[in-house]
Amino acid sequence: MDAAYQRIADDIARLINSGHIAAGSQLPSVRELAAQRGVSATTAVSALRVLEQRQLAEARPRLGYFARRAPAPMAEPQFRPPQSHSRAVRISDVITQMFPGEAPSPPRAAPLGAALPDPELLPIQALQKATARLARTRPQLLSGYGPLDGSLRLRRWLVAHYLRCETVLDPSELLITNGGMEALELALGAVCQSGDSVAVESPCYFGFLQVLETLKLKACEVRTHPRSGLSVEALAEVLQAPGGERIKACLLCPTVSNPLGATLPDADKQALVALCQRYGVALVEDDLYGDLHYAAQRPRPLRHFDARAEVIVCGSFSKTLAPGARVGYIAAGHHVERVRALKFATSVSTAPLLQAALAEVLEGAVYVRHMRRLRQACQDQVEQVMGCITEHFPPETRVVQPSGGFLLWLQLPAGSNSLEIYRAAISEGLEFAPGALFSASGQGFADSLRLNCGHRITPAMQAAVARLGALCRQHLAQSQSASHSP
Amino acid sequence: MDAAYQRIADDIARLINSGHIAAGSQLPSVRELAAQRGVSATTAVSALRVLEQRQLAEARPRLGYFARRAPAPMAEPQFRPPQSHSRAVRISDVITQMFPGEAPSPPRAAPLGAALPDPELLPIQALQKATARLARTRPQLLSGYGPLDGSLRLRRWLVAHYLRCETVLDPSELLITNGGMEALELALGAVCQSGDSVAVESPCYFGFLQVLETLKLKACEVRTHPRSGLSVEALAEVLQAPGGERIKACLLCPTVSNPLGATLPDADKQALVALCQRYGVALVEDDLYGDLHYAAQRPRPLRHFDARAEVIVCGSFSKTLAPGARVGYIAAGHHVERVRALKFATSVSTAPLLQAALAEVLEGAVYVRHMRRLRQACQDQVEQVMGCITEHFPPETRVVQPSGGFLLWLQLPAGSNSLEIYRAAISEGLEFAPGALFSASGQGFADSLRLNCGHRITPAMQAAVARLGALCRQHLAQSQSASHSP
Repeated sequence: MDAAYQRIADDIARLINSGHIAAGSQLPSVRELAAQRGVSATTAVSALRVLEQRQLAEARPRLGYFARRAPAPMAEPQFRPPQSHSRAVRISDVITQMFPGEAPSPPRAAPLGAALPDPELLPIQALQKATARLARTRPQLLSGYGPLDGSLRLRRWLVAHYLRCETVLDPSELLITNGGMEALELALGAVCQSGDSVAVESPCYFGFLQVLETLKLKACEVRTHPRSGLSVEALAEVLQAPGGERIKACLLCPTVSNPLGATLPDADKQALVALCQRYGVALVEDDLYGDLHYAAQRPRPLRHFDARAEVIVCGSFSKTLAPGARVGYIAAGHHVERVRALKFATSVSTAPLLQAALAEVLEGAVYVRHMRRLRQACQDQVEQVMGCITEHFPPETRVVQPSGGFLLWLQLPAGSNSLEIYRAAISEGLEFAPGALFSASGQGFADSLRLNCGHRITPAMQAAVARLGALCRQHLAQSQSASHSP
Repeated sequence: MDAAYQRIADDIARLINSGHIAAGSQLPSVRELAAQRGVSATTAVSALRVLEQRQLAEARPRLGYFARRAPAPMAEPQFRPPQSHSRAVRISDVITQMFPGEAPSPPRAAPLGAALPDPELLPIQALQKATARLARTRPQLLSGYGPLDGSLRLRRWLVAHYLRCETVLDPSELLITNGGMEALELALGAVCQSGDSVAVESPCYFGFLQVLETLKLKACEVRTHPRSGLSVEALAEVLQAPGGERIKACLLCPTVSNPLGATLPDADKQALVALCQRYGVALVEDDLYGDLHYAAQRPRPLRHFDARAEVIVCGSFSKTLAPGARVGYIAAGHHVERVRALKFATSVSTAPLLQAALAEVLEGAVYVRHMRRLRQACQDQVEQVMGCITEHFPPETRVVQPSGGFLLWLQLPAGSNSLEIYRAAISEGLEFAPGALFSASGQGFADSLRLNCGHRITPAMQAAVARLGALCRQHLAQSQSASHSP
């Protein structure tokens, strides 16, 4: 996946995007490129084809390849301020309709729905080898529950990992969980009682809303900026409002959020921790996508700004290593005793074999290289999907510029209803996450949608995005003509 | 583990226990035994030593082996009727003290605490092979979430398995869970609201109580017979009491219960299903130990007697195949949509690799043979521990005769406090489950305790049971002298 032709394509793409190669100018011929880079003609052709796929080059018959104009940056979405009071969450019915228990029918045209990376981008081979070897040689990993808190080796790796972004965790506050969702449920279960209100971002990852619904917690949706995330000012207003309601906890994704890909600036992280401590609001930090921030050095998590270890950090290896391992973690700080009791009552322990196999892959040199490549691939893929959107979606479509990860949030022009578009799209096997999933009422963000860009951009993927754009344009034309008819 | 010497020992043990070989009479000599059974002298010696270990034979120097008096059957425990009203559950603090997150210290003298079978009794090698092979050859089992409901192959195996005890499940009502505990939490989460009352057996498996505490449900503890399980009559009284409280669900282990090993007779199962349907009480059946019933044909589950598929059946492979796989299941009947939504919000899906590996082992011929041996081993081990108890525990100790499984419930003479004995015992690395864990208040069954007999009876195990008996006698003498002192 890191073949020579891709490295060559990446280099040329950077020159085009930075303006060093002007739009419309001719690119090196196959023979020139092969000579310049010391590769075969086949490799040079492949590199040029990749650029064409990414819409950064076009082939003109008998003339060769030419650089294309980099698409104009698209406008950012504009959010209406959410309701300022908490409300019960009713989202699970909408969600289960979209994620049926069995495989979808008709078959999926492209993996644009669930937030998952391409298996080809993950070090699955290394994990297969480690798992097979451990399964053969360590029977106790299958015959016993293992330590209730989870593999000490894996917990120690997490401690070392967070130290790299200047955050001190203790192995004794860490528990390994069945994926990141269990971690979130344990965190909220430990700090909230049924009926309590929890502040969340708006739009809010529907998985958060599901956990709130399961635990019968109310959601207080707080204004969020498409790039800088939750508005700490808006949260402060809610907390300071005289006679305002009591917020028990704040659940958010401060570094690379879902769906926006937004990251709170350090100053806001610091202010948020201070604000929550002042008002006795528990902070639950979902750090699921933190390692996928595009910067060379990932931003520090909220917990870094919290000297008292009150922030509960949750995460998992589903987005960076292996969704199928179903392994997540929780750094519960002061709440560890309560979280441990809940975990023991919920699922006893997490499968020891998969924990051990993950630890082995994480400790290896493969993992560091893998993460560097994965981050770059995510950024490239998001850019490529943006290119397709510019070309195929209705003009005036607005798009978020994510700070990391592989999710892309779009706002369609006024009058669009993404749930209606979804119904038309899914009958063709085209899936995405409609905006309605990202509000507590299941009614908000009707004009928006989330696309998963975790997968390699193939011609089938480009065709799927193009077709989706056509459906959006068609829907918009219908709804405009309907609103103009007498 | 099914060696010739053990078969010979089993045959002689049956003759002693049935009285065909009188206590005190001489057993065949090594030479005679070897000739009779056509085995080597070494094998014959091993068989006689096993009988000695089981306290069914004693060696007299220069004379040979003699049959010992079979221990008089011990009296059954007597239970005080539990409180007839529901109460909040407060048990997690007691439990987390006893199950620390890390390995115990001092090291465990014998595995008498947690309810687990000996790894040597499980087909772990077959599971290792299947897991290693699937890990190598099926990358998608690690790279993807798999079907949300779980492996269809595993669900189909469960359908076929339940058909063998005349119970019809449908693959579409089955979900694979992270162990049996998650299944129980999903079941109660689907049919109850926080604050509802749930009828349970008394004594009640502490895992049930933990789930009730987590979901903030109240426990209504119902009188239970040490052999025939939950008193359907007592439950009827609670439901019929004029102005009595509303019971929302009944959670029980109708076939081989934990801790008693009791099994509801068929007529009681039928009556229980009818009673719950009449009063609109949801039934949650934990079938975790059902396959470990000692009878050649396991009794039919509650669901068999329920034509309307209202009984929710939960179970797991932790007690019969591999605790470390952390795989359980739920047959949710009419409640499947609600359960699916909860599962998706709790942990998305269960690790696909381990599901596939279990399915492979379960489908093989190995599994049927394994279960036959496991049942026999459990029965033998329970009998041997009973022998040790007769010899070393205070006279007047009462013991349950379980119908299956590997758990043994003892009632110590009046004045005993098993929680105090626990504190003395654990400092020597001797663990067991004190009776206090089995009541909603954490206060009941102070005179009782549960021993795990899932492990092979070694000299170390016998010594541990003997030492525990000595601690019980010592504690009793102290408490009696304290109560008689002025």
